Amino acid sequence: MSGEAELVRRYFAAGPRRSDVLLGIGDDAALLRPPHEDALVACTDVLTEGIHFPVDTPAEAVGHKALAVNLSDVAAMGARPRWALLALGLPRPDPQWLAAFARGLMDLADQAQVALVGGDLCRGPLSATVTLLGSVIPGRALRRSGARPGDELWLSGTVGDAGLGLEVVRGRVELEAEAARFCIQRLQRPTPRLALGQWLAGRATAAIDVSDGLLIDLQRLCEASGAGALLRWESVPLSPPVAGWVARHPERWRLPLTAGDDYELLFTLPPGTGRMLKRAALEVSCTRVGEILAEPGIWVERGGVRQPWSGAAGYDHFAGPA
Amino acid sequence: MSGEAELVRRYFAAGPRRSDVLLGIGDDAALLRPPHEDALVACTDVLTEGIHFPVDTPAEAVGHKALAVNLSDVAAMGARPRWALLALGLPRPDPQWLAAFARGLMDLADQAQVALVGGDLCRGPLSATVTLLGSVIPGRALRRSGARPGDELWLSGTVGDAGLGLEVVRGRVELEAEAARFCIQRLQRPTPRLALGQWLAGRATAAIDVSDGLLIDLQRLCEASGAGALLRWESVPLSPPVAGWVARHPERWRLPLTAGDDYELLFTLPPGTGRMLKRAALEVSCTRVGEILAEPGIWVERGGVRQPWSGAAGYDHFAGPA
Repeated sequence: MSGEAELVRRYFAAGPRRSDVLLGIGDDAALLRPPHEDALVACTDVLTEGIHFPVDTPAEAVGHKALAVNLSDVAAMGARPRWALLALGLPRPDPQWLAAFARGLMDLADQAQVALVGGDLCRGPLSATVTLLGSVIPGRALRRSGARPGDELWLSGTVGDAGLGLEVVRGRVELEAEAARFCIQRLQRPTPRLALGQWLAGRATAAIDVSDGLLIDLQRLCEASGAGALLRWESVPLSPPVAGWVARHPERWRLPLTAGDDYELLFTLPPGTGRMLKRAALEVSCTRVGEILAEPGIWVERGGVRQPWSGAAGYDHFAGPA
Repeated sequence: MSGEAELVRRYFAAGPRRSDVLLGIGDDAALLRPPHEDALVACTDVLTEGIHFPVDTPAEAVGHKALAVNLSDVAAMGARPRWALLALGLPRPDPQWLAAFARGLMDLADQAQVALVGGDLCRGPLSATVTLLGSVIPGRALRRSGARPGDELWLSGTVGDAGLGLEVVRGRVELEAEAARFCIQRLQRPTPRLALGQWLAGRATAAIDVSDGLLIDLQRLCEASGAGALLRWESVPLSPPVAGWVARHPERWRLPLTAGDDYELLFTLPPGTGRMLKRAALEVSCTRVGEILAEPGIWVERGGVRQPWSGAAGYDHFAGPA
């Protein structure tokens, strides 16, 4: 079997050329030309088999998602992605698996114009850690901490698709073929909301990506902002498969709020400015789902009744699922 | 058990304050002020239990080494480290283990003036992936590719200590207590050669850090430079424990050349300039071990006989040990 250097050359050498890469893969470290005026943005996220994705997830989906979850973090800062580093643990060198993984990752890198500039490929439990670097005008970066009472609370896309997809993959829920395909696709190949995040930069007062669950990520945004929020259940955008499933299983109405893995953007806008968003032609539709309150705490309004939301509200990596 | 955010706050919030960190741990990504004139340097390295370090390695040593191996890559570029991100997989949240790991990592971060600006802490097989960012004046960055025929070949510190330490840990070799302690210390707590790397920037023609083994890393430097090298066995610097052990086991003389995990710098200097290095007061002594040849290939001179070195020469992450 070939060594590390050859595997990297074979599968990861392609990808977009960026003039800000002075020295890419192949030395002790990459050399990059930093942005002149912008701030750097940096984040890292791990996907481990059996924890973050089920055993037997297609390799191409793992490659796609390993980059997508990091692109989603960069989107939530209002930033543009530039460069990625990949640490990949493989139980054994499996050229077929590796080729498919690389295809999934590099296709998305092409779309997002991200150059893969370094990494570490080694034996170990199946796990992919991507570190992503990007840039943003400092004063326009989206933080979690800027939400103010009265701000409108908005959400991109729909929530619950990936959570329901995971139930399908685990054999706990049965859906019609097309609905199942849609939900599994949303689970395995999330779409980072890069254009939306960049549009929101300098416009939204706060933003976070919904990775662990709508409610837990809303709680994080509110805690960072020293505020509370009201979420209107009837306004929460659901795809037809999830809406239909929840209608058939009303006792599971919380799933779209807690299941996580949605990679949509949750953000706040100054009162009255949501109309701008409606007019901007963006990649994904956005929906107003509530508002920011002065008092700490999350309230959920459903069927005309407001109730405080308490307890676990999503996936915490150590506390476990809600 | 506490959730991820609290664990991070408790164990990783301290560390050096840097004015170039605009927003650290706690949002979707960090915001950093990039260097004005310098190039950015970026690298990532994984340590996985049972692969890169033996089961039951002290947590503090794992924390130290996870950062040290990346600092060594930055040193090999002649760069200054600035910021680190940590992806840590833990089979279960073990506060004692985590506290010791964090102590090992943060102590070295303090010494190297590196700010930990982000990360991902999650359940999974025990594994620590650090991504390190630094900066260097672009024209002075040390690459592997600049060695020219006639250049002097130099090495910092000693090689073989960590390799012998691993043999001791695995119970394959017995040493006197003090010698064993020294070798295990070198295995578990390598010292990145940051000051040396920065001194070499703009002076050395090529450099690489010896992580996988002196010979394999020399091969990589020579391949990148389109050159060959002569290595004089009698000049290779050995610590007293390794020198003594090799004297007692002459058939194992290759161990210091192939064992890896040394994290010393191997570099080339223009002919006649090695004296400068001797005069500069650096953190570690350096030794001339050979020279660069025009013809590709590695030659080892031992007992007055030159032989071509062929075959595996160190640790390849997929081909396995030599």
